[in-house]
Amino acid sequence: MTKVRVAVDAMGGDRPPEEIVAGAFAARSDKVEPVLFGRREALEPHAQGLEIVHAEDVVAMDEKPSDAAREKRNSSMFAACRAVGEGDAQAVVSAGNTGAMLAAGLLEIRRLPDVHRPAIAVPLPSVGGTSVLIDAGANADARPEHLLQFGHMGSVFAEEILGISSASVALLSIGEEPEKGNRLVRETHPLLEASHLDFVGNVESRELLAHAADVVVCDGFTGNMALKLMEGTIKTLLDELRKEIVASARGKLGGLLIRPAARGLRKRLDPDTYGGAYLLGLRGLSVIAHGNSSRTAIANAITLGAQGAAANVVARVAARLEEEVAVAPG
Amino acid sequence: MTKVRVAVDAMGGDRPPEEIVAGAFAARSDKVEPVLFGRREALEPHAQGLEIVHAEDVVAMDEKPSDAAREKRNSSMFAACRAVGEGDAQAVVSAGNTGAMLAAGLLEIRRLPDVHRPAIAVPLPSVGGTSVLIDAGANADARPEHLLQFGHMGSVFAEEILGISSASVALLSIGEEPEKGNRLVRETHPLLEASHLDFVGNVESRELLAHAADVVVCDGFTGNMALKLMEGTIKTLLDELRKEIVASARGKLGGLLIRPAARGLRKRLDPDTYGGAYLLGLRGLSVIAHGNSSRTAIANAITLGAQGAAANVVARVAARLEEEVAVAPG
Repeated sequence: MTKVRVAVDAMGGDRPPEEIVAGAFAARSDKVEPVLFGRREALEPHAQGLEIVHAEDVVAMDEKPSDAAREKRNSSMFAACRAVGEGDAQAVVSAGNTGAMLAAGLLEIRRLPDVHRPAIAVPLPSVGGTSVLIDAGANADARPEHLLQFGHMGSVFAEEILGISSASVALLSIGEEPEKGNRLVRETHPLLEASHLDFVGNVESRELLAHAADVVVCDGFTGNMALKLMEGTIKTLLDELRKEIVASARGKLGGLLIRPAARGLRKRLDPDTYGGAYLLGLRGLSVIAHGNSSRTAIANAITLGAQGAAANVVARVAARLEEEVAVAPG
Repeated sequence: MTKVRVAVDAMGGDRPPEEIVAGAFAARSDKVEPVLFGRREALEPHAQGLEIVHAEDVVAMDEKPSDAAREKRNSSMFAACRAVGEGDAQAVVSAGNTGAMLAAGLLEIRRLPDVHRPAIAVPLPSVGGTSVLIDAGANADARPEHLLQFGHMGSVFAEEILGISSASVALLSIGEEPEKGNRLVRETHPLLEASHLDFVGNVESRELLAHAADVVVCDGFTGNMALKLMEGTIKTLLDELRKEIVASARGKLGGLLIRPAARGLRKRLDPDTYGGAYLLGLRGLSVIAHGNSSRTAIANAITLGAQGAAANVVARVAARLEEEVAVAPG
């Protein structure tokens, strides 16, 4: 069996390249071969025998995606994506600038033939299992036929990468009835219902942390808003709880006693502690890890990317959308 | 000084009419005269001298708003709203069906002349003070000029009812930069910037619980989604924390010790524990209390409604929008 080659942007993210390289080294196995992209002189001292592809430039975390696309084709990020586009690697992982990764994916890896719009899938931890939120921010404006495709891409992702069999798909709305919601949601509902997906109807946002469905579909504005709102609410709530607790001696003692439970909970439910985002709909798998990813997080992202590549997620997405196009009216 | 008359839908909500009547009685003062709407025989035994206006029908909590508007004009809810429309009361309070109250407001109280669309304002508790979220669900689809008006209505509400001087106004988006967001947000940004509002730019949802601004403007789909997501996330998180805590003896003791802090926090931050929703943009003030409102919550809603009426919130909204129309191009 040939190894899955995963292109790793070793210069992306908030941490120094050593951290990324350490993650890549940890992910290396008899099935996975990480390939480092970045400045050779920065990587060589730490590479421990990993392959290095030299790339001169670095995309900054706050760089405008359109600027990066124009000026940074020689960056570690764009070069790593290009390796996937050219077939030298089967997946790419970066902890860098999300918007720039989106641009690099479109430019260097390119869309699958039947895909209207690539979308960002984020595994959302919840009570009762992981959900996939799609789109978590690639398309601030979307049309009903895009959301239908997001449903398909999300269900392939849930099945092949998260190992959920016959994933249920729900539409994020402001009421469970099909006639509730904005125009986009109301027009998407019948498309999902007519599809071959296991569509369970509309779900309300209050169910998101309580496992609304295996796949939750929405436009990228709504998804990004929801993701950041959950992260912000969990953070603010736990921070404030800590403050209220330490305000009294009684609370302080109580706080010490519940600390392991509170930490466990945060780790289990905060979307921010999960693996990152997956850009679906391209001719290769693109994984966007959190900017502050540790070596363990990077290793996980590489492993998941490789797993997705080995499971032929891209080919399965392509086949699924081709089927759907074939049966779609008009 | 004449008393402010507040029409109270005594049959609305999940609790029995006695509870609403008790709230109305508690809110009665030398400034406020609550008037009860509902079945005379159900209310008379509890009314303690409060005025009763008989209304035969009751709008059910799950009744379709369009059905209620067609068949329930003789209900306590519609009759109470009609009293405001006809000038017999200056504000209306109901703990009933939100969608039906929206329909009753439009039909019986009617829009102010310059208002494109009434909107729901919800006081959002947060760390660092209360924010007003507008629109929290009246308009699932909205246009930029609607959102501009929501900004004005929200700032009048914050200033006159919540007592915030020169309220800051922010636009809910998925990035702070003006070019971030969906088309609606990108087109609304310049309108808010060109207005006389104290516009502080875009805010991300992760700041909502940390006092993003005095007034946070969005379309009703986004606002309703955000509100329910905050409620659901807080509820799920605290429920799960309780479960993790009681799973160990150590945690159980700690849980007992932090209970007052946790309760205080929930009370302070959960939108669900706050006063309810205010429908702005009509010729009278309409307050939609939570379905499960206690007598205290009903009394608060009546007091706030009366306070808004005494402060001429409706006239101030009308004047503010008239000004804005006068200066608006086109």
